[in-house]
Amino acid sequence: MFERFQIEVLATTDAATSELEEHQKLRASDWHGRMIPTFRPDAVVNIQPGFAEQIRLLSQVSGVDVSDYRTYLTALEQRRRFFKELGATATDHAAQSAYTARLSAHEADAIFQRALKDEASAEDARRFTGHMLIELARMSVEDGLVMQIHIGSSRDHNPDLLTRFGRDMGADIPTSSEFTHNFKPLLDLFGRDPRLSLILFNLDETTYSRELAPLAGHYPALRLGPPWWFFDSILGMRRYFANVVETAGIYNTAGFNDDTRAYPSIPARHDVWRRVSADWLAGLVVEGIVDEEDAHEMSIDLAYRLAKRSYKLEG
Amino acid sequence: MFERFQIEVLATTDAATSELEEHQKLRASDWHGRMIPTFRPDAVVNIQPGFAEQIRLLSQVSGVDVSDYRTYLTALEQRRRFFKELGATATDHAAQSAYTARLSAHEADAIFQRALKDEASAEDARRFTGHMLIELARMSVEDGLVMQIHIGSSRDHNPDLLTRFGRDMGADIPTSSEFTHNFKPLLDLFGRDPRLSLILFNLDETTYSRELAPLAGHYPALRLGPPWWFFDSILGMRRYFANVVETAGIYNTAGFNDDTRAYPSIPARHDVWRRVSADWLAGLVVEGIVDEEDAHEMSIDLAYRLAKRSYKLEG
Amino acid sequence: MFERFQIEVLATTDAATSELEEHQKLRASDWHGRMIPTFRPDAVVNIQPGFAEQIRLLSQVSGVDVSDYRTYLTALEQRRRFFKELGATATDHAAQSAYTARLSAHEADAIFQRALKDEASAEDARRFTGHMLIELARMSVEDGLVMQIHIGSSRDHNPDLLTRFGRDMGADIPTSSEFTHNFKPLLDLFGRDPRLSLILFNLDETTYSRELAPLAGHYPALRLGPPWWFFDSILGMRRYFANVVETAGIYNTAGFNDDTRAYPSIPARHDVWRRVSADWLAGLVVEGIVDEEDAHEMSIDLAYRLAKRSYKLEG
Repeated sequence: MFERFQIEVLATTDAATSELEEHQKLRASDWHGRMIPTFRPDAVVNIQPGFAEQIRLLSQVSGVDVSDYRTYLTALEQRRRFFKELGATATDHAAQSAYTARLSAHEADAIFQRALKDEASAEDARRFTGHMLIELARMSVEDGLVMQIHIGSSRDHNPDLLTRFGRDMGADIPTSSEFTHNFKPLLDLFGRDPRLSLILFNLDETTYSRELAPLAGHYPALRLGPPWWFFDSILGMRRYFANVVETAGIYNTAGFNDDTRAYPSIPARHDVWRRVSADWLAGLVVEGIVDEEDAHEMSIDLAYRLAKRSYKLEG
Repeated sequence: MFERFQIEVLATTDAATSELEEHQKLRASDWHGRMIPTFRPDAVVNIQPGFAEQIRLLSQVSGVDVSDYRTYLTALEQRRRFFKELGATATDHAAQSAYTARLSAHEADAIFQRALKDEASAEDARRFTGHMLIELARMSVEDGLVMQIHIGSSRDHNPDLLTRFGRDMGADIPTSSEFTHNFKPLLDLFGRDPRLSLILFNLDETTYSRELAPLAGHYPALRLGPPWWFFDSILGMRRYFANVVETAGIYNTAGFNDDTRAYPSIPARHDVWRRVSADWLAGLVVEGIVDEEDAHEMSIDLAYRLAKRSYKLEG
Repeated sequence: MFERFQIEVLATTDAATSELEEHQKLRASDWHGRMIPTFRPDAVVNIQPGFAEQIRLLSQVSGVDVSDYRTYLTALEQRRRFFKELGATATDHAAQSAYTARLSAHEADAIFQRALKDEASAEDARRFTGHMLIELARMSVEDGLVMQIHIGSSRDHNPDLLTRFGRDMGADIPTSSEFTHNFKPLLDLFGRDPRLSLILFNLDETTYSRELAPLAGHYPALRLGPPWWFFDSILGMRRYFANVVETAGIYNTAGFNDDTRAYPSIPARHDVWRRVSADWLAGLVVEGIVDEEDAHEMSIDLAYRLAKRSYKLEG
């Protein structure tokens, strides 16, 4: 399918604690498609039941004895290097809220210690994730991994599914989001840093024209990801073009990628994006806002070049 | 007018304490149109000035001596039976917020007692309504009455109107709503119960694509009511189709009903819905998303069959 | 340019403490275009660093020895009279939130005294602005100056710009707003007062259909300003027509004005509005909702007469 779909790059998302065995096997094989891992540290960043076990796993795979906040950061940095060696160009983070705020190393360590003893509160968890998003942005500035953030899903909404099948099995419902205040601490530090490429996905369309387009228009590090999940759809894409692009332009977006779990759906999903974006551009040409030549270039950028550039896949 | 408009069913909304005299007279008359009551318990559920008097009235009409939370529930159940006997298939509840959360019987009784003595706080009122929405859903599961909830109106916004003419005389202004978190406690218990048909109306269009369509798509008991009040309009309906249906489909909606107080407006209001829905369907046919045969069936469902099914009027 | 652009009135915005020297010079000159000041008291109303210095300036230019809340009000009233003498017909206020709530004179004075000593908290500042919006509406009722309020901008978002160039140099990012509850205290007092013309601008499009259109439809004093800033654009205007006008009608809007800092952009900006409004009206004619004659009158109202009337420029 990889060849038939003419895929240039396919990125998996992998737990920070993964040994990436399949990626290692692929590399050792005689198949030479570009299939790369993505560093997804949610389980070792978001404090929830089982966190301590995840940290033990992190210790083990990183070879760093993680006993406090300092060694925890070292272990994360080690894992990022390992992912990079196997081809990763990006990380991926999910948080329910876009809240970011810096903690002192002392506070971060105190929460981390409580989390290891399963004594962290919900507020601890919120503050720790808010701090770690900044810390992970700092790591991205240093090691060059593109940072993806997915905001706004209330996961495991259906208790029946949760009880019977465990976490992350569906019934994730969007919630409203806030970026202007919540993201400021992160953007204060890294929003203008040319080394950072921060791609933001979200599930609250009301933030498109109100917050995200103005923020992406202002901060060079910030790029808006394509419409995500429920909005990876014809009307979702149309609303995205209507509400994001007039203010932010297409060159502050990351073009299109999709995060399907269904391999055979890849061509169809890209096809929908290509058709909707071409239809939108055709409308701009008809209205005399964009000329035909520019529209042609923009359509290629939207379908292909923007994603390649945003994810640093040009090398 | 009932015959001239070819009305099959007309439902009034009636206080839980109503004796439904007109309905009784109609039944005894030789007119055989289907005009049925709807159980609207707001005045005996939402704690506000005059609540104790409402509860005395409830005692009187139900024949249940309402002295505590337990006898209060018994009286409500008695009234629901009475309404059902006179043809009711549905209840109707209004709350400013979608907040739901279960109280212990002990807590519910404590608030109820304070309310009887006119000593309940605004927070008491909020928690009591949040609890009773769950309790009323439980009753609907048991007696089969369809549950309608109208969320998001800040009533009596104009103090002048309120002082001169009393409550519920107009100047009701919408507010923003939240369903993903607020409705979870109710949906946790009954969202997957096939006995429940819960029809939700709201005044915050931003929740259409973000919360309501995903929730209605997931929980079988939940159906979205048609655009309400300010949004019972051409553009309101178009936005509803654009933002709800791509995710939820039309079969998780309740089709169309309207809640006019103006009898002669009934045909015009249904006509607007039929035209806007037919126009929307025609667009889907032109775009090749729906074929003509399906569109024809969908137009009948939207105009007629969905409402009939959702309100259990097929018998 | 004034003549070439066929400008009838051009209003500047000027600090409450301004001596309006340029306006005085213009008046004394032999140029007779109508260029008038607008009273913008933000710096003497919103408590922020430098507030005490602003109040000293206010004392100085007003000739009122401002030592407490009472003399502060007197000084503001004096400045408003001075602005009116030089042709002002309006005031302009910016606040991040639409929060309004009346303080007692005692509380207002206590906060004012703390602010003079640079000891006011963020909460003090929020409450003082919320109170002063009401107080300034009261002054508008008395002196007839049209009141403009701009809500929803989080100013100086980029700390780098702020540090290097100081306040109000850009990087202002919209935030979500709430009007139904926040504006009630002000509307309770003056929303039905025929002497008040209150023009509201905001940056949260979700409030258009949910809060602003219903409020403007209900309260005679309230008029909605045209789409502002990021939304002073083709699509911003289209969304405004789609979401505001069906409920509020055009005669509860203030038509169009723009707040450009770029003199040569004035004709283009008005031209965009005229074209988008004419296009929107043409659509209503094609759909049979408005007839051609009415559309013609409405287009003139939208382009010209509504603004003139709303800003009391007809004299």
